[in-house]
Amino acid sequence: MTALAPVLANIDANLDSSLERLFGLLRIRSISTDPAYAAECRSAAEWLADDLRSIGFEASVRDTPGHPMVVAHHDGEGPHVLFYGHYDVQPVDPLELWSDDPFSPAVKDEKGHKVITGRGASDDKGQLMTFVEACRAYKAVHGRLPCKVSILFEGEEESGSPSLRPFLQANAEELKADFALICDTDMWDEATPSISVGLRGLVGDEVTIHAANRDLHSGMYGGAAANPIRVLAKILADIHDETGRVTIPGFYEGVEETPSQIKKSWDSLGETAESFLGEVGLSVPSGEKGRSVLELIWARPTAEFNGITGGYTGKGFKTVIAAQASAKVSFRLVHKQNPDKIREAFRAFVRERLPADCKAEFEPHGSSPAFQLSYESPFLNKAKDALSDEWPKQAVMLASGGSIPIAGDFQRLLGMESLLVGFALSDDRIHSPNEKYNLSSFHKGQRSWARILDRIAAR
Amino acid sequence: MTALAPVLANIDANLDSSLERLFGLLRIRSISTDPAYAAECRSAAEWLADDLRSIGFEASVRDTPGHPMVVAHHDGEGPHVLFYGHYDVQPVDPLELWSDDPFSPAVKDEKGHKVITGRGASDDKGQLMTFVEACRAYKAVHGRLPCKVSILFEGEEESGSPSLRPFLQANAEELKADFALICDTDMWDEATPSISVGLRGLVGDEVTIHAANRDLHSGMYGGAAANPIRVLAKILADIHDETGRVTIPGFYEGVEETPSQIKKSWDSLGETAESFLGEVGLSVPSGEKGRSVLELIWARPTAEFNGITGGYTGKGFKTVIAAQASAKVSFRLVHKQNPDKIREAFRAFVRERLPADCKAEFEPHGSSPAFQLSYESPFLNKAKDALSDEWPKQAVMLASGGSIPIAGDFQRLLGMESLLVGFALSDDRIHSPNEKYNLSSFHKGQRSWARILDRIAAR
Repeated sequence: MTALAPVLANIDANLDSSLERLFGLLRIRSISTDPAYAAECRSAAEWLADDLRSIGFEASVRDTPGHPMVVAHHDGEGPHVLFYGHYDVQPVDPLELWSDDPFSPAVKDEKGHKVITGRGASDDKGQLMTFVEACRAYKAVHGRLPCKVSILFEGEEESGSPSLRPFLQANAEELKADFALICDTDMWDEATPSISVGLRGLVGDEVTIHAANRDLHSGMYGGAAANPIRVLAKILADIHDETGRVTIPGFYEGVEETPSQIKKSWDSLGETAESFLGEVGLSVPSGEKGRSVLELIWARPTAEFNGITGGYTGKGFKTVIAAQASAKVSFRLVHKQNPDKIREAFRAFVRERLPADCKAEFEPHGSSPAFQLSYESPFLNKAKDALSDEWPKQAVMLASGGSIPIAGDFQRLLGMESLLVGFALSDDRIHSPNEKYNLSSFHKGQRSWARILDRIAAR
Repeated sequence: MTALAPVLANIDANLDSSLERLFGLLRIRSISTDPAYAAECRSAAEWLADDLRSIGFEASVRDTPGHPMVVAHHDGEGPHVLFYGHYDVQPVDPLELWSDDPFSPAVKDEKGHKVITGRGASDDKGQLMTFVEACRAYKAVHGRLPCKVSILFEGEEESGSPSLRPFLQANAEELKADFALICDTDMWDEATPSISVGLRGLVGDEVTIHAANRDLHSGMYGGAAANPIRVLAKILADIHDETGRVTIPGFYEGVEETPSQIKKSWDSLGETAESFLGEVGLSVPSGEKGRSVLELIWARPTAEFNGITGGYTGKGFKTVIAAQASAKVSFRLVHKQNPDKIREAFRAFVRERLPADCKAEFEPHGSSPAFQLSYESPFLNKAKDALSDEWPKQAVMLASGGSIPIAGDFQRLLGMESLLVGFALSDDRIHSPNEKYNLSSFHKGQRSWARILDRIAAR
């Protein structure tokens, strides 16, 4: 406690200068998908390495086949943490929808809040700097960090992270820590911090049903020839039963029930099917009956049809029986579901339902297992307490319906669990014009990391 | 008999000159869909009117908003028949696949048969000239026609006949006859003449299922939000039961059982599921179980899905839950099924299966009732006997799986039944490069019409 209070005071006192530093980083146009900005990506990496060196990190810019990584280390007592963030940003099109230049950051008033504006303010430059500034304050006050800290910043997160896995594999020994801290996620709301303890995995597959060897006239052949759209519709319709449960044999293998106290904490968030779905014009949960909407998106696996096409799809009408029809299907996975087994089970399910004269062809579209942190993890509970100290409301341990591959990569490639803590808000307009980051997220985010590091270091 | 024999002899004696006349017509590039050939369409109409006048018809070229009609009348005793054909032809692309200029007709050898080559040789100039030449021969021999004959040639059949219905309505009194003769169909095979007594009708409809008010991320919303592709697949899958029967309530209202002697005659044609479907790489009839493949395509109604689209359909994968998905659906109708009722029943079927928060939108794509000539019709049986006299095998009364609107239009607008008799063969390559018409079709087709007119005129 005596160690923490002056660090928090230092953060408060230096908010303006921390903001100036963030502005310096935000001015760099590090758009990773556009080769025209490659030099700016490198500049951002160098800016970060320089800044980390100024706090006493041993920092280096490491080349990859794409944009460089920044790797930095700082010695310390106690556990070893690896912090991850990304310095690259999304493109800014359409530029005409921005109120100001996306790379001229500013602090503005918005609906009674002070917000930092600019591309990357929230995703992820503002977020990653909360951690850097917490380290800076701790170092300024105590001349050391509370524990051993390594940092990994990548520059390709917005373009699919093609260099990340090879880099982790090649540098596993250097990067492996006791656990990882990832700052690229949202708070539940502006008063309620959150830790993402579950991330759904994903299996993507594409099935094409082949029937006749050419398109047929539906008058000549209709009623006799197999129609691949009909075959496909029947198969897809069979995948869910009337309660919304997936019927593929073995699908729920490895799925665990969420502890009831966690479910209770989710219920207490006050999110209902009406509130969650109402925003997008819907009202009735389509998943398994008898489960809350948050449980459905955070802790239950799904089968979704992401695209379907077959026959004539232009304007007007064509009386054709198509030779083929196809669907893109994805499965969100939870807990210990095995992506390879799920893919095989789906394909077997399709093959079993094929008429004798139809064929199915499959194309895989990637897979990643789910990530699930144990609710018993001591790091998790320390972080939860630290966040609850800083913010008006208790931190919630939530899951995320989407898939964030980095957490799974750390688990698989480095044998390291991840704590996902972020201070972004759902209205930050990331990936869109007029991206912003609340000044309170930036300020209390720094204080949050100081508290988390302090708690983690405590014996 | 005494009246007919010299007519047949005249036809035989004048085959070469009839061929010369057909060549004259085939040289005219009357492609109706391409405005560049509008003048050639008119030339074809005028060529026909001139030729009919040379036989003693009162013939005129009538303007329409599109290409002109040819209307001609010739007095005679006994029943009054209206003969229909079309002088327009399909485009000739891809030109490089033609062995010869499509508008330089010739007689060639092909697999042991003499064939007339050129665009329109079969569809429909060669066919319509069989009737004109039969009239010419009868007139040459007897100085009269065996009955009262009117003729209607249109020039827009290959481009959807936009002017036909208004023309029939405006000229109903002039065109109405005791029955119509239509020459635009195939023989069963080269030895077996056929009369099409049934033509399936058609209802086309398009359904779009709307779910969320925008595309959703399948990670964020998957398992909670309604997926319109899933909703659509379920509805389409429900339309057929396990026996291939359509489950829409009231769908089979107006469907009659085909007389058993007709079914027997179809069975005797030797067509099997294997032979019919094998040609297109299939083997298992997809329609109602327990019915022959010919019955399925000729005398049973269908529900077919002609197109489906929703979500991401490009290369690769996108984890999207679409806001909407749609399908083009068609129903082939038989006998007395009511197109309007079928459309409404389908739409009610869809609406009943919608989740509470989804909406369905419909777009109609045309409809026409089925055409079914009574198997007891005296004209039908006279034509059947006449054809059986001419060809090696007995004529068969078959149905056609496709929809030929002209027969329905004659029935509805002129209150007149149609006899569909044609001498084309399934390998005539109509609508394709190297179209041909067997010389025997042209020659025996003329003889067939002479026999039919003779039988019809007989008291």
